[in-house]
Amino acid sequence: MTVRRIRVVFGNGEHYDIRIGQHLIVSLGTHLREIPGISRVVVVGDENTMPRFAKHVRASLEKENFRVDEITVPAGEISKSIDQAIALWDALADIGLSRDGAIIALGGGVIGDLAGFVASTYMRGIPCIQIPTTLLAMVDSSVGGKTAIDRPQGKNLVGTFTQPSYVAADLATLRSLPEAEWENGFAEICKSAMIDSEEFSVWLTTHAAELVAHDPDIVQQAIARAISFKAEVVTHDEREQGRRECLNYGHTFGHALEVVAGYGVISHGRAVAEGMRFAARLAVEVIGTSSDFVFAQDTLLDMMGLTALPQVYSPDDLLKHMMSDKKVRNGAIRFILPIGPGSWDVCEVPFDTLHEHLEAWARSKSVYSEETVQENIASDTASTTVTVPVGEDAAS
Amino acid sequence: MTVRRIRVVFGNGEHYDIRIGQHLIVSLGTHLREIPGISRVVVVGDENTMPRFAKHVRASLEKENFRVDEITVPAGEISKSIDQAIALWDALADIGLSRDGAIIALGGGVIGDLAGFVASTYMRGIPCIQIPTTLLAMVDSSVGGKTAIDRPQGKNLVGTFTQPSYVAADLATLRSLPEAEWENGFAEICKSAMIDSEEFSVWLTTHAAELVAHDPDIVQQAIARAISFKAEVVTHDEREQGRRECLNYGHTFGHALEVVAGYGVISHGRAVAEGMRFAARLAVEVIGTSSDFVFAQDTLLDMMGLTALPQVYSPDDLLKHMMSDKKVRNGAIRFILPIGPGSWDVCEVPFDTLHEHLEAWARSKSVYSEETVQENIASDTASTTVTVPVGEDAAS
Repeated sequence: MTVRRIRVVFGNGEHYDIRIGQHLIVSLGTHLREIPGISRVVVVGDENTMPRFAKHVRASLEKENFRVDEITVPAGEISKSIDQAIALWDALADIGLSRDGAIIALGGGVIGDLAGFVASTYMRGIPCIQIPTTLLAMVDSSVGGKTAIDRPQGKNLVGTFTQPSYVAADLATLRSLPEAEWENGFAEICKSAMIDSEEFSVWLTTHAAELVAHDPDIVQQAIARAISFKAEVVTHDEREQGRRECLNYGHTFGHALEVVAGYGVISHGRAVAEGMRFAARLAVEVIGTSSDFVFAQDTLLDMMGLTALPQVYSPDDLLKHMMSDKKVRNGAIRFILPIGPGSWDVCEVPFDTLHEHLEAWARSKSVYSEETVQENIASDTASTTVTVPVGEDAAS
Repeated sequence: MTVRRIRVVFGNGEHYDIRIGQHLIVSLGTHLREIPGISRVVVVGDENTMPRFAKHVRASLEKENFRVDEITVPAGEISKSIDQAIALWDALADIGLSRDGAIIALGGGVIGDLAGFVASTYMRGIPCIQIPTTLLAMVDSSVGGKTAIDRPQGKNLVGTFTQPSYVAADLATLRSLPEAEWENGFAEICKSAMIDSEEFSVWLTTHAAELVAHDPDIVQQAIARAISFKAEVVTHDEREQGRRECLNYGHTFGHALEVVAGYGVISHGRAVAEGMRFAARLAVEVIGTSSDFVFAQDTLLDMMGLTALPQVYSPDDLLKHMMSDKKVRNGAIRFILPIGPGSWDVCEVPFDTLHEHLEAWARSKSVYSEETVQENIASDTASTTVTVPVGEDAAS
């Protein structure tokens, strides 16, 4: 397999490289030598990634005479905290890291966000190299320069926009990735394809079966295409002031689903896929999108194993969550709606319209799984007495 | 007095305005309207600045229909802490500030650094407006985009490079500024003048007496000149990778003095002025700077009331502190040395050379105040038995 390289170039001439291939961490040292001003590195990973990959990273770096330190944080979203950020800042200071140092983020989205934030603020910013070890992190968080930690008041409440200095998407790290994690990445790749172009979405549909079977060449191509799409969007809107908003396609409804179901009940990927289905149907009514688009997208998502959710949740709860989001303005919620493949618009959808569609969404679930629907409504809205029809009840 | 406006324009086209004049906070609302995308503001100040200025700021903003909230933090360096940053992030979230919000930093350097850091990281960055209320903050920290908080491991250990959206240097806020605070600003203005150009340093020497007497027009001109100089440097080196280093003139030795004396014993201004005297003398030997420069600078500093320090500190302690600084590389310490007015170089001065000069510096003090010298060495290096001659002892 040939290594693919994508160079991300910003308006001010700054740039960084992304490499996608097998066993890239073994040659990491060589590529790091191409970045000026770095003489030592601190590898930040979690309890899962460090035992598996750190020794290869270290060997590769030491061969190029970098001084290497390692810091391991607990696995999971809990580490995207200010406490971990403080522990990292202080640890970097204690080992005497100065501005000739760099951070290597070795892990999934949590490690990338946390280590990226710490790197962007330690001594007012030192370089960060992303080595994403999940498919989702490869196609999403490692590219784009968003760093963040959570606060009780909100996920990603504190963070920066800071581009990485280098990204190495090493497919070898995906070998033991759980199936649910593959799904998360697949959903983002589907999103990218539908928003990017007819060409990408047709290519993805054609190769969906091979991608699901983890065919290495198709996995590499899919990652490269998704990253190219995201990099192109981000270079034109580094700080999320316009075009970048398209990356939220499927996420407004998806996030609401994740929260209303309780984090972890529905995977991020399944939630985003369901959000794409919802947004496409909304687009048919609001901006006259062709039902061909809905059909094509359904087909792709089905082929990728991201089938429609069987369960339903209360339209009221979902709407309530969406109304508390930062995308709300003047009684309307901003949605990314597809016009067709590769074409989209930002639409402010009034609460009323949205509520109707949420009811329709809930009704659609009852068609093929009325029992599941009722069980879910019963268990998720404990205080509600469930009677048929489901849609009306859920909206009451 | 006419308001002076300086527009700072960066290579990527981004820019912000700095205004210098009387009663600018009264017209703040109007100028804030010129910045797109802001609909509400949170004024962050301390126990000194909020009672005195917040009501004027609020009145001016509300007249322009901005929604205004206020947050007061304790006065002093202690507020440049992660605890205060967390309290601010959470407070902003609790009052529901979103990306259409902005922060106004109303105070001296501590407030500017803290509020600037919080603004640059809240929701990955919202605009920050600086209203410096000390001369030092006007000519130094409010311009240049450095934000920071302290950690026990180091001052300014955590922070960002983030440019403000607007700076209003309102001379009316200086009315009750203590004399020691004026000194801090004067030293930075002297530094700017010597590094900037012969024209600025001659102008400053000519008007030193009026500046010391707080003549409003001269104060305004001096601030405008110092800001123009700094803005020009910063636009060419936003992230301190080259030219910006000149702003450290006088600070390497100055910082060491502050720490060795114990923070607060010598004011920042007096320490920087002493650092400039030291660096100029070092330059005579290391790069052959003319003694005319040393004399001209001594004259200016004397006229500004920044006379040479009477007390002395242990050369060993000073060197030790400088060796722990981030400017150390390969057994040498990076110094900004003046070649002449408006001309400088970065020189790596070997530890040995530096030690000799520190001894010479210590000896120079004994000439006119041998008793003070001995007392200071005795009290600062408790384990050292003091015998004459001072220089040799201190270096032993």
